[in-house]
Amino acid sequence: MKDVQNSIDKRGIAIQKVGISRLALPFLVRQKDGGMQPVLATIQMTVALPKECKGTHMSRFVEILNAWRQKPISSHEMKDILADAIVRLEAEEAHLDLAFKYFLEKEAPASKMKGLVDIDCRFMGTLTKDGVFDFLLEVAVPYTSLCPCSKEISAYGAHNQRGTMCVKVRYDMDKILWIEDIVSNMEAQASSPVYSLLKRQDEKVVTEEAYDNPKFVEDILRDVVLVMRSVEGVRWFEVTCENQESIHNHNAYASHAEFVEA
Amino acid sequence: MKDVQNSIDKRGIAIQKVGISRLALPFLVRQKDGGMQPVLATIQMTVALPKECKGTHMSRFVEILNAWRQKPISSHEMKDILADAIVRLEAEEAHLDLAFKYFLEKEAPASKMKGLVDIDCRFMGTLTKDGVFDFLLEVAVPYTSLCPCSKEISAYGAHNQRGTMCVKVRYDMDKILWIEDIVSNMEAQASSPVYSLLKRQDEKVVTEEAYDNPKFVEDILRDVVLVMRSVEGVRWFEVTCENQESIHNHNAYASHAEFVEA
Amino acid sequence: MKDVQNSIDKRGIAIQKVGISRLALPFLVRQKDGGMQPVLATIQMTVALPKECKGTHMSRFVEILNAWRQKPISSHEMKDILADAIVRLEAEEAHLDLAFKYFLEKEAPASKMKGLVDIDCRFMGTLTKDGVFDFLLEVAVPYTSLCPCSKEISAYGAHNQRGTMCVKVRYDMDKILWIEDIVSNMEAQASSPVYSLLKRQDEKVVTEEAYDNPKFVEDILRDVVLVMRSVEGVRWFEVTCENQESIHNHNAYASHAEFVEA
Amino acid sequence: MKDVQNSIDKRGIAIQKVGISRLALPFLVRQKDGGMQPVLATIQMTVALPKECKGTHMSRFVEILNAWRQKPISSHEMKDILADAIVRLEAEEAHLDLAFKYFLEKEAPASKMKGLVDIDCRFMGTLTKDGVFDFLLEVAVPYTSLCPCSKEISAYGAHNQRGTMCVKVRYDMDKILWIEDIVSNMEAQASSPVYSLLKRQDEKVVTEEAYDNPKFVEDILRDVVLVMRSVEGVRWFEVTCENQESIHNHNAYASHAEFVEA
Repeated sequence: MKDVQNSIDKRGIAIQKVGISRLALPFLVRQKDGGMQPVLATIQMTVALPKECKGTHMSRFVEILNAWRQKPISSHEMKDILADAIVRLEAEEAHLDLAFKYFLEKEAPASKMKGLVDIDCRFMGTLTKDGVFDFLLEVAVPYTSLCPCSKEISAYGAHNQRGTMCVKVRYDMDKILWIEDIVSNMEAQASSPVYSLLKRQDEKVVTEEAYDNPKFVEDILRDVVLVMRSVEGVRWFEVTCENQESIHNHNAYASHAEFVEA
Repeated sequence: MKDVQNSIDKRGIAIQKVGISRLALPFLVRQKDGGMQPVLATIQMTVALPKECKGTHMSRFVEILNAWRQKPISSHEMKDILADAIVRLEAEEAHLDLAFKYFLEKEAPASKMKGLVDIDCRFMGTLTKDGVFDFLLEVAVPYTSLCPCSKEISAYGAHNQRGTMCVKVRYDMDKILWIEDIVSNMEAQASSPVYSLLKRQDEKVVTEEAYDNPKFVEDILRDVVLVMRSVEGVRWFEVTCENQESIHNHNAYASHAEFVEA
Repeated sequence: MKDVQNSIDKRGIAIQKVGISRLALPFLVRQKDGGMQPVLATIQMTVALPKECKGTHMSRFVEILNAWRQKPISSHEMKDILADAIVRLEAEEAHLDLAFKYFLEKEAPASKMKGLVDIDCRFMGTLTKDGVFDFLLEVAVPYTSLCPCSKEISAYGAHNQRGTMCVKVRYDMDKILWIEDIVSNMEAQASSPVYSLLKRQDEKVVTEEAYDNPKFVEDILRDVVLVMRSVEGVRWFEVTCENQESIHNHNAYASHAEFVEA
Repeated sequence: MKDVQNSIDKRGIAIQKVGISRLALPFLVRQKDGGMQPVLATIQMTVALPKECKGTHMSRFVEILNAWRQKPISSHEMKDILADAIVRLEAEEAHLDLAFKYFLEKEAPASKMKGLVDIDCRFMGTLTKDGVFDFLLEVAVPYTSLCPCSKEISAYGAHNQRGTMCVKVRYDMDKILWIEDIVSNMEAQASSPVYSLLKRQDEKVVTEEAYDNPKFVEDILRDVVLVMRSVEGVRWFEVTCENQESIHNHNAYASHAEFVEA
């Protein structure tokens, strides 16, 4: 059976990324507490294709992922999966992007009742044949923001809303950055965190906390920047904050990226 | 050239709806002020297919829509388009679903500055060969809701958020129900409407209005039900309200449908 | 602490559905093989609210779901969850909608290699205080369709594309309808099923199978209707087929619903 | 009325981007034929915020856009809008991202019947106070791809599918790059273009053209790379191709970016 993918290409163009996208698979993610969490992953996996190769081997991506989806994944396993891809696809470079909802148990502030909050996460890794590994962790956390201007100028009340803060971070690979820790660092910078389960005594605490802690989208962004600078091992980060303004049908938005000296 | 669609089907199954979906086309919608508004329509158009027909003629749907997209549309033209479809596709029944963003100019409450707010609308029509016409108008309006419980139990402040109220309505076809009028009827039932453009003096008004007017999702739903009952010509309606709770990462939701006696 | 939700409402409107929506939670779904599958559920849960009650108790929905998410769910547990909701929320009627991706292992036709295909499923249940239980299972299956007209009129080749067939089904509650069985019944009606993992020898089989088996969207719909009529215990079903036409930027669409006599 | 946004910030963090996002507005886009096309724009507009400023003036973004939405826009007007933003928001740098569906009339290959195909476009501009203008045009075009491997190894037929090719391009600002021209350059690299309206004689042409012109996602990507290199004035481009594989429930994907010497 002829292998068309294996024929020679004459156009002289090395392709930076080729592979599969929007593949849905169950995966396991390592938790900070030593356990592992089953997640639904949406996956893009690609390799670099040399200029003389007509095509890559699409089915091998699925084979590699099928094997790995049964072992708990963190940044280190991302590197191992990519090393597999480099060998099995004879590639100079491989890329893997795993997006998934990760659940954290949070305790309500007064009743101490527990509930799960969903956090949108992504592991994005690139590995070269020479072993250079670039890993990016993305964590998107819902929050409450309360507008300082609205509070200041109004006789009573203040508009507030749900927002999402998203951090992408690169860090020293001899460190482990747990999603659990990043989330608590991040959400402490909002007017208030959000919860899954709140009884009335909790709702009182959350409402008053937000009112006591008014913050523009700029304030939240700056405070997340400050906290990210302080996390040991962080080398680069990007922060995005987006408030689903309760007084508009559009959002307030801020973003900022920077390198951090070792 | 053989016409496979025109061959005889032996399975004995008359298909209720067959046609095209997710077609994007520019359309024109009639405004209350006599003008017309260019919109981006997402379209589903189908016909009933008799049991002996193997297939419908997919390209004719596009031909019909291409002709109509240059004339302003309201409920009456929906009927005319469907009548065209019944003739050109030799069908007993035809269906058309046009979804589009419609823009309304709104004046800020204090500064009186003007801005456009986007309203998600749908025209859904069914016509039979005997001339029975069923028309459904859907209008989804963003709003602010402020939680009465949070206001009551908190020493200060109250959580509030953006929400969406959606009304589907059937009415006497000798009446015209303008999107403009339904929207103003609907948004008057929220804690406050939302705006595109608000200066500081407006933000004060909107913040205080919401605080003076706390409403659960149940309250907003009931008040929209009351106002829909009062609109002349309405025969059936369904109301859905969804609050993007600022203290949770999930929504509060309510829905209700009822017939209205003439 | 005042309980505003518990006050009396004077508007005289009983609300059909009120509760929470877009809640994400991990759940467990019963598999046909006796195992259970962890899934990511997107949830809407509501109750009917009597006309004299101002509001429902939003936090109790989350409490009920938190308890249930640790036990494997099928149609029977859906009823039990709703019974819980009726008691804890003092409601006449409760509704639960669980949407999730469910994975099935499929064997490639020639190489027999295995891979997981994702199927979009929903469990939708309604229970009244009197014990009347309405349960709807929704299953959406990806497939290949190959156009009979294109095959007939072209000197060679035929356009084909990915499509989605979606079945909603009501059935006798003393029967169990496994997602696994419905999926295999459904996808046998396409030009060819789709797979996660195909080697070259499989790709040959799938390509030729589709070419040998050309079907309009109408054909696929009718054949799914026939197979659904033949499934023991089915009382009502709705079928929707949508082809992502490879020659257009819009889809071909067909839908049909019917009751089945016992 | 106190202006909280105007107070001094002590954190010492200059924010790279702050403003509004997900604003929907009708806009006008310049066409190659001299006309203008009404479009539905989804907008993000931001400015850089100096470290000593607490907040930006969110309402001014809406005011600026309200004024501009009534004049036809191309790359040049993007610069003018951003210049306005720099003055009115007293900013060092401003960014504007306009995403919209743009419609092109296409003639069917045999019947010569005309229909509109929707193309997803984006104008992305950045202007500094010193007048440095960076403009990026994004154009996403639907197409048909037919698999060379499937054609080669199968006795008959070949799997094919809808795909999307997306080009982002930077070019000399003394040139004008029309969406119309980029689209025709791009879609000529697919196995076949897609159309809105095809009669049977057209379907024959399109089916045979695709079969005569089998291309992997890698082939289409490389041919789009070649054509983009040849467009006069292009300085940088990124190409992404994604095939909605008809035999899988996931996609085949390729991407590549490069600078072009003047």
